[in-house]
Amino acid sequence: MTREPLDAVLARSTIDTLRFLAADAVERARSGHPGTPMEAAPLAYLLYRRHLRHNPADPAWPGRDRLVLSCGHASMLLYGVLHLAGYALSLDDLKNFRQLHSPAAGHPEFGHAPGVETTTGPLGQGLGVSVGMAMGGRFLAEQVSAELFNYRVYALCSDGDLMEGLSSEAASLAGHLHLGNLIVVYLDNRITIEGETSLAFSEQVATRFLAYDWQVLQVEGENLTEIEMALNAAKADPRPSLIIARTHIAPGAPTKQDSAEAHGAPLGAEELAATKSAYGWDPHQSFLVSEEVRAHMGACRTRGRHLQQQWQELLRDLEKNPSAGLLNWLRSRDGALPEGWDLHLPAFGAADGPLATRQASGIVLNALAARLPLLLGGSADLAPSTNTSLKGERSFSRTGSGRNLHFGVREHAMGAVLNGLSHTPGLIAYGATFLIFSDYMRPPMRLAAMMGLAPIYVFTHDSIALGEDGPTHQPVEQLPGLRALPNLHVIRPADANETAEAWRLAVERRNGPTALVLSRQGLPVLDPDRYAPADGVRRGGYVLAEEEGDLQALLLATGAEVHVALAARELLQAEGVATRVVSLPCWEKFAEQAESYRRQVLPPSCRARVAIEAASPLGWERWVGTEGEVIGMRGFGASAPGAVLLEHFGFTPEAVGKRVKELLARSKDVNPDAQS
Amino acid sequence: MTREPLDAVLARSTIDTLRFLAADAVERARSGHPGTPMEAAPLAYLLYRRHLRHNPADPAWPGRDRLVLSCGHASMLLYGVLHLAGYALSLDDLKNFRQLHSPAAGHPEFGHAPGVETTTGPLGQGLGVSVGMAMGGRFLAEQVSAELFNYRVYALCSDGDLMEGLSSEAASLAGHLHLGNLIVVYLDNRITIEGETSLAFSEQVATRFLAYDWQVLQVEGENLTEIEMALNAAKADPRPSLIIARTHIAPGAPTKQDSAEAHGAPLGAEELAATKSAYGWDPHQSFLVSEEVRAHMGACRTRGRHLQQQWQELLRDLEKNPSAGLLNWLRSRDGALPEGWDLHLPAFGAADGPLATRQASGIVLNALAARLPLLLGGSADLAPSTNTSLKGERSFSRTGSGRNLHFGVREHAMGAVLNGLSHTPGLIAYGATFLIFSDYMRPPMRLAAMMGLAPIYVFTHDSIALGEDGPTHQPVEQLPGLRALPNLHVIRPADANETAEAWRLAVERRNGPTALVLSRQGLPVLDPDRYAPADGVRRGGYVLAEEEGDLQALLLATGAEVHVALAARELLQAEGVATRVVSLPCWEKFAEQAESYRRQVLPPSCRARVAIEAASPLGWERWVGTEGEVIGMRGFGASAPGAVLLEHFGFTPEAVGKRVKELLARSKDVNPDAQS
Repeated sequence: MTREPLDAVLARSTIDTLRFLAADAVERARSGHPGTPMEAAPLAYLLYRRHLRHNPADPAWPGRDRLVLSCGHASMLLYGVLHLAGYALSLDDLKNFRQLHSPAAGHPEFGHAPGVETTTGPLGQGLGVSVGMAMGGRFLAEQVSAELFNYRVYALCSDGDLMEGLSSEAASLAGHLHLGNLIVVYLDNRITIEGETSLAFSEQVATRFLAYDWQVLQVEGENLTEIEMALNAAKADPRPSLIIARTHIAPGAPTKQDSAEAHGAPLGAEELAATKSAYGWDPHQSFLVSEEVRAHMGACRTRGRHLQQQWQELLRDLEKNPSAGLLNWLRSRDGALPEGWDLHLPAFGAADGPLATRQASGIVLNALAARLPLLLGGSADLAPSTNTSLKGERSFSRTGSGRNLHFGVREHAMGAVLNGLSHTPGLIAYGATFLIFSDYMRPPMRLAAMMGLAPIYVFTHDSIALGEDGPTHQPVEQLPGLRALPNLHVIRPADANETAEAWRLAVERRNGPTALVLSRQGLPVLDPDRYAPADGVRRGGYVLAEEEGDLQALLLATGAEVHVALAARELLQAEGVATRVVSLPCWEKFAEQAESYRRQVLPPSCRARVAIEAASPLGWERWVGTEGEVIGMRGFGASAPGAVLLEHFGFTPEAVGKRVKELLARSKDVNPDAQS
Repeated sequence: MTREPLDAVLARSTIDTLRFLAADAVERARSGHPGTPMEAAPLAYLLYRRHLRHNPADPAWPGRDRLVLSCGHASMLLYGVLHLAGYALSLDDLKNFRQLHSPAAGHPEFGHAPGVETTTGPLGQGLGVSVGMAMGGRFLAEQVSAELFNYRVYALCSDGDLMEGLSSEAASLAGHLHLGNLIVVYLDNRITIEGETSLAFSEQVATRFLAYDWQVLQVEGENLTEIEMALNAAKADPRPSLIIARTHIAPGAPTKQDSAEAHGAPLGAEELAATKSAYGWDPHQSFLVSEEVRAHMGACRTRGRHLQQQWQELLRDLEKNPSAGLLNWLRSRDGALPEGWDLHLPAFGAADGPLATRQASGIVLNALAARLPLLLGGSADLAPSTNTSLKGERSFSRTGSGRNLHFGVREHAMGAVLNGLSHTPGLIAYGATFLIFSDYMRPPMRLAAMMGLAPIYVFTHDSIALGEDGPTHQPVEQLPGLRALPNLHVIRPADANETAEAWRLAVERRNGPTALVLSRQGLPVLDPDRYAPADGVRRGGYVLAEEEGDLQALLLATGAEVHVALAARELLQAEGVATRVVSLPCWEKFAEQAESYRRQVLPPSCRARVAIEAASPLGWERWVGTEGEVIGMRGFGASAPGAVLLEHFGFTPEAVGKRVKELLARSKDVNPDAQS
């Protein structure tokens, strides 16, 4: 693309406008980060005015270049440049920086301000997400259309991003895959919150990225010509590129440039005025945008409209004789699922058991993949164990963009990449590891939940029952930890058919993430003739086995422990204790149900309730009350065969039956005020 | 140290013995990882027989070299070599590999088998811990005695360790600090679970570590001479060293060498027999240890006894005229605290408020540090915000080992380093970041809890009240997530005096980690004349303000929300509702109290209970019952000033008062069977 020559005067006044919009907004909010927006203004200017293909009038244009502000604390830089470029973000919005309901939130929040591509703030996440976005772009280019999806992903990052291990995982993966559509600019200002970066960070960043097989370029952060040359070189290289821009935090601030003080607090009225004076600006004016600057940046809109029109024309041309890939994408670009996508989900019979839910999941996933061509995913080097390979599909590698992803032993990057893929229109992305290693990827899961993205997490090896690998591999606190995360649905199916239903829910849900929690060990397939059908999973919890006689005891369980509950029920019924078993695979869905339904499943009058789950009991009192009992894990597991451990830790029908009878005996003895 | 010449024949038979002990044990357990122990046997042999200064008769000898098996799945290698070296680990123990109560657990577990320095298995953790151990050694060398504490830390790791971001954080920090006492051997076998490492991992590891300022050496993994030369070069260099050993998984296995199949499953009887034949071993014998090999390895005991005797003599010499540092260490080496350590903890008066608990924590921490010379710690680049600098103390840097640590923006490495420091006799280590970023360091926190190590986590900015930084920085699910972790004590103090008590508990507790959860915002100091004294924190929960009149309502809260509860109580009492306020800063301690105490604090007869905590409500039903209410966060926060958010999300005395009255009204209407 040919570009107009750089007008040095207009460029400088626009850049300075960006600096002071940021400094003014932080000053007005009495809170925020002025230094980094001021230093990165030249980059933001060049990117938005001259390099990014974007249309401020349609921030969702699928063909646009993406920019991720990985150093999210520099949010005012982004708001400033989006405002000037003509996005629907007013000067008043900027003046309301960091106030309730303002789109100009403290850190960039996806869905709040137009043009914010992803939520950032927790360091490293933006870099990880940008790798996922670049993978998504490459996938669409290969599977749908290389002409439509030749977009690039740009990311701005700081030393903090590069110190986070996540950035190493993501950058190593990006270099491995030769994501040439990824360009990262590192703002090398040598200042951190505690002081100079040299306090803790002396590695050679350039060498490190060369080790990952990136192109590395170095520029001076105020030298527009150098930056332009580097951006052009980055675009031309088949590898991902890192542009190291030597910058100075809060450049031009008389006493605070190159100081940690300029990082996370307003400059202060006096320093801000002095800085404006130093730039030849009127120290008494704030939020100043000259007509020249406005007109100069207005070109973003004109150019953007033109670019998108060209793209739409190309799309129309392609639609005349569409490829299968294009049809798939057109069908699903807005999150719709192809008709009949779930008609042929496998149904399992009792004879199919014993079958681990991870195995059932692998069967269901492959059935889904056959109907969902834009479903892609993989695991953090555990595909044979998590059963998450798509059979007959190619790998996503340096030379091709197949549907089987290989994340390596990089759970954290996997979580962030799934977010980037989930930002890509039309794609449904899943990632797998052992449940225990969900601990390595909580930060991106949280961002998915916050943004309403819908990756699917496949977490297998879900309890002590995984056996010999021992307590380091046996999840205990992970289930409640995940349940505590708002907007994440956690589903722990009890058998193969519940697993199919869980997958159905996960795929259907396009406004939040879902975690499937699956067993390593084989489990019976519940006989549909004997027990309630598995579509009860849709309601989060349901009566799996009714009591015979007047209800005396309620057993609640999830996953593998449902079978313990059912066997305990047999024992109890044989002794005349009318016992109901409730399968509660998804608390979040159950809590959403009408109260009448919940009371029907868990009749309030029955207080003899025992929950059985091989996990930390935290939270179960919500369903069993303080008078109920929770058979769970109070400590860590141990290394031994799974069946030995289940017995050792009391997950047997006999132990459950005993607890129920003790509970019934106690409740007869004690007055109703026994709660403590 | 001069060493005997290498006896090639004995070396080979010992190495092969190690290989087959591992393969046999995995075969017998029908579970485990044979390939890596087989490939790493030459290294283990050379290290334990010729390089490590260790005494099998006293695995706790403080002057010993440490070896960390970061690739914990190769546990049988460690058990094999510990057994041969004469540690108290019998051949029967090895035969019970991966069985309940066996010290030879699936992954090495600290405290289970002698000579296991730390629990490993989750990849990357061992590397991180070894960095902390090396820092601990350097700290003792400088602060106590360079002669006593010149030990080295060795780690063995695999490609999985190096893919994990944690390893990048830890290695970057180690290079920055020039930890010359750290030697890491990377077993470069080019095989992962999914196949060849080239599927996902093509970075130049050597270049990457050079970027971190490590010495990098490359050897062939079966070439004993090369390995010895590399180990000697590593010991001589002031930088940490990475020895890249090109190895072959399951070397000599006819069909499984260099195959992913050899990673995580037994070789199978046939393959194992064929492998033995290939080595010239009798394929029909298992767990074979020849007398020659046993005698050859017996030298470890002799040499170890001798080394430790020398060390003890040196210690006796030094004790004759001990330095202050040595006295400090002798006093605390077994975890004892110096007399009077907590006599001068600050007490705060109402006039000291408002004071954020993070500020109070900074004051208390500095008072503690004055009495605890071997207390050290720091933050992940947030010291000015977390108030965790020790005033007047030096930094831990490349050139000196002061008590102020600078982790950089590397929370995960911080967690692992704290474990390494906590393994170091005499040290008490703390690490700080914002509560939200505890998500980045859950895996090492879990290991600390599992091992019973006692680092102290200082987590500030503990709720939406942190304000403008917005939802990415506002913890919601972190409190329940931490409470779910077994053996972690989570303390969220309500004011400055509760903060002092919380620190006292955290320091006293030497058999498990403690997380202090602290406010960013200023809080009143509770008037000791008006409210119960803060030492109630010791019991986890206590009645802070008694009801006036016959108890009608119970308000339970932690941290900042205790003040909301107290103000709500005022409103309610003014309307004649006799209301008690219970401060519940530490659930784990409260749950440990006698039932009688708990019933006294939370009288079972009072069911009108409202909990107030600006966090995910998961778990509160344990204390308020299903009939109570939880005023918590059902979703994520927002970007706005903290006070605005507290009002917006309902954390006001008025809103609490209203909920209490609704609850009381409802309970009058409804029959006692209303539970659902």
